[in-house]
Amino acid sequence: MAAADIGIIVSLCKRRGFIFPASEIYGGLGSTWDYGPLGVELKNNVKRAWWKAVVYDRDDIEGMDGAILMNRLVWKYSGHEATFSDPLVDCRECKGRFRADKTYELDCPRYKRKVAACSANLTEPRAFNLMFKTQVGPVEEDAAVAYLRPETAQSIFVNFKNIVDSRWRKIPFGIAQIGKAFRNEIVPGNFTFRTREFEQMEIEFFCKPGTDADWHAHWIEERHNWYLRYGIQAENLRRYVQQPEELAHYARACTDLQYRFFPEREDEEKQWDELEGIANRTDYDLSVHSKGKHDKWQVHNEHSTQSLVYRDPVTNEKYFPYVIEPSAGADRATLAFLMDAYSEKPGPDGEPRVVLKLHPALAPIKVAVLPLARNKSELVEKAKAIKADLQRHGIRAVYDDTAAIGKLYARQDEIGTPFCVTVDYDTLGIGKTKDGAKEEDAPASPAGLLDTVTVRDRDTWEQVRVPIAGLRDFLADRLGTV
Amino acid sequence: MAAADIGIIVSLCKRRGFIFPASEIYGGLGSTWDYGPLGVELKNNVKRAWWKAVVYDRDDIEGMDGAILMNRLVWKYSGHEATFSDPLVDCRECKGRFRADKTYELDCPRYKRKVAACSANLTEPRAFNLMFKTQVGPVEEDAAVAYLRPETAQSIFVNFKNIVDSRWRKIPFGIAQIGKAFRNEIVPGNFTFRTREFEQMEIEFFCKPGTDADWHAHWIEERHNWYLRYGIQAENLRRYVQQPEELAHYARACTDLQYRFFPEREDEEKQWDELEGIANRTDYDLSVHSKGKHDKWQVHNEHSTQSLVYRDPVTNEKYFPYVIEPSAGADRATLAFLMDAYSEKPGPDGEPRVVLKLHPALAPIKVAVLPLARNKSELVEKAKAIKADLQRHGIRAVYDDTAAIGKLYARQDEIGTPFCVTVDYDTLGIGKTKDGAKEEDAPASPAGLLDTVTVRDRDTWEQVRVPIAGLRDFLADRLGTV
Repeated sequence: MAAADIGIIVSLCKRRGFIFPASEIYGGLGSTWDYGPLGVELKNNVKRAWWKAVVYDRDDIEGMDGAILMNRLVWKYSGHEATFSDPLVDCRECKGRFRADKTYELDCPRYKRKVAACSANLTEPRAFNLMFKTQVGPVEEDAAVAYLRPETAQSIFVNFKNIVDSRWRKIPFGIAQIGKAFRNEIVPGNFTFRTREFEQMEIEFFCKPGTDADWHAHWIEERHNWYLRYGIQAENLRRYVQQPEELAHYARACTDLQYRFFPEREDEEKQWDELEGIANRTDYDLSVHSKGKHDKWQVHNEHSTQSLVYRDPVTNEKYFPYVIEPSAGADRATLAFLMDAYSEKPGPDGEPRVVLKLHPALAPIKVAVLPLARNKSELVEKAKAIKADLQRHGIRAVYDDTAAIGKLYARQDEIGTPFCVTVDYDTLGIGKTKDGAKEEDAPASPAGLLDTVTVRDRDTWEQVRVPIAGLRDFLADRLGTV
Repeated sequence: MAAADIGIIVSLCKRRGFIFPASEIYGGLGSTWDYGPLGVELKNNVKRAWWKAVVYDRDDIEGMDGAILMNRLVWKYSGHEATFSDPLVDCRECKGRFRADKTYELDCPRYKRKVAACSANLTEPRAFNLMFKTQVGPVEEDAAVAYLRPETAQSIFVNFKNIVDSRWRKIPFGIAQIGKAFRNEIVPGNFTFRTREFEQMEIEFFCKPGTDADWHAHWIEERHNWYLRYGIQAENLRRYVQQPEELAHYARACTDLQYRFFPEREDEEKQWDELEGIANRTDYDLSVHSKGKHDKWQVHNEHSTQSLVYRDPVTNEKYFPYVIEPSAGADRATLAFLMDAYSEKPGPDGEPRVVLKLHPALAPIKVAVLPLARNKSELVEKAKAIKADLQRHGIRAVYDDTAAIGKLYARQDEIGTPFCVTVDYDTLGIGKTKDGAKEEDAPASPAGLLDTVTVRDRDTWEQVRVPIAGLRDFLADRLGTV
């Protein structure tokens, strides 16, 4: 079972600054969300871990970052303008508009009964395109229509030749991209699971026809392992092989990685939903964006100025590469990591304490440096100096003195900080003075504690004493390369 | 003088995979650009260097990442819906639409003469709002209109209270954000200098009225120094203090950091344009987004559900904080760093060689690991192992064998890679065999060269021999914490 359901996560996210409802002071804007101070770090870490795995740790992937606004012709030839739509019906009574395939699930906002119960008054289904439309430039005319991209993939296909040429790439190789995409969903919801504005992490991996099944298997394995490596529990992740009738017309195969996003649902089968899809898109994409007729796909591209055919530099063989597409959602991945990391255990006061067991590489803050008391300037200065030193060496650290030490520990547990470092009187080599006593009367602290600090582990709550001189290495060893 | 003009940079960017015209195979889409394999790394490094300076290295800034789609009421009360516009005129002859304040500069597309020369046929100026409009949800009605945000700043203002509350923040503190914004510019152009889709790096720093002038001065200094620290030459950066008549009605002061973006222009004054603006926005923003009447700003907010007034937790004093806003463009900064790093010098063949002297923290690739010959498997394997080891320890490295060694050096110079590491026969402990000779006849390499590599410096072209065991430290010392 996943460690928490979405409702618990929504509340934690708001309370602790991970994710806020967007435009909240004006009543929001249907299912848009803003990442707060901790959320932006978590999501950036998820994106960085993905980029590291697919670009930096391999030798066969190039990155890119394309514009959200693209020429309308891209969507004409990709097929999105004609077919990227949901079937909608209008209700003649309440004037509501609904997804035709969901009328048994949805409530009519006026009559508060299932839409299907008003079915006598529903119009015939019509296709509603999911792309957001806008006008580019000052003149309102058809030629100036542009869409917000509904996926990042197409930026990659139309840049295929630019990247092959500028980076001397040979097949097999891939292109990776992280970026925003927009879909005018009729029924967004479930927090950041389905939103109209979202961020994708997509790879298009180009290979020779005939090698595509092997590369497809490779990428399913790679991506599955990536989630496990960063902390998703195996029991909450599964593979779902799409059936032939579920595939897009150009796809040869698609395997979804599903996460247990809805552990609260009674029907076990309904607990699962898509986290990432890994599709074999055949040679569809590079063909349809190439100038000329492509009988195989019944497309005649009269607008593209280029052929995206690939010529093997050794054999001179020409072909359209096959494409394997591992397509993940940065928001969904972030949500899954949050849900899976959530745990509770009794705190020292007996009250339930939230501990977010995020992988150190994903944790928004790696180390919190805390002074035992904020009204003692030597403690504050020493703590700030330690924070600055860790940060200077690339370890994300914060200084915090906004509450008493026990409360600060609890707050750091709740946001997933792997280590707390506490600067106390022993660090300064002096015993704590009793209230009202003169400082010079303080007893000396035990031998060997001067210039040491306490390091507290988030998961075990164990505290060890570490010399400041060795602190950085101590932490770096336990955090790994993050 | 800047090292290169924009034209030279455009060409380098296309050729070497920094920046491509977006949707290029379909003829582009007016001034949109895609960042290619090297461009995405460079721009991400610029963003990371900014985030490090303003969030990680300080203790008084929180980050966030808000949605691009926002509730329309945000733009009503920020003033954008009413006033964020350019004055446009229509030409009755050619049907063109132009900025009224630029008719002396622009050519009529039909008559190829300055628009001002057709002035008898121009309509009166009308306000053209620069925000991109779209429809959210399936029902086309006025309530569903949304704008693509024209600046990231407003996400920060409307989240002010969420962040104060969830992060226990006290004034003075700031909120930083990096993200896309969109303006339907009438005259975009000059490569990535002015585009309709662009990425901002904005800080809103909240302080007590009366301390605002000091904080303004602080941020001008900080931001100026940031550009210098990452390699911008002092002679290409200057401050421009806006005159009272140039200020927005709510602003008390604004200083622009200007870069010499147009070194080819004869008039020295016209060489400069805005890189970053640092404004004192007074208490305008938090006031106008608060519910109720704000006589000072002649705004009555009937929609906001909150007051964004700040109460000092010690004195209980209530006030709307003043805001200092350092607002930078990630694309403009990237362009400035590229222009400033550009240099040429004669290569070993006497031909001019481009060397991109990017700061190591900004360079897309830190180290290129090259085998002396790609047909010798031991060289290839050793080079790939070194690349993997450097990468595992967080040093961005690539393996490259796509050309002969001299050509690879030239390519790495051109893309700004600070170091090349070459694996040669001495690394393997064997002398190079003559063509056709048997390998076992090869002479042993000079003593002490086994398991060493050549490290070549981008700027001096000096080569030194370094033991593989010490390579990582050797490079890390010279690259700094990046």
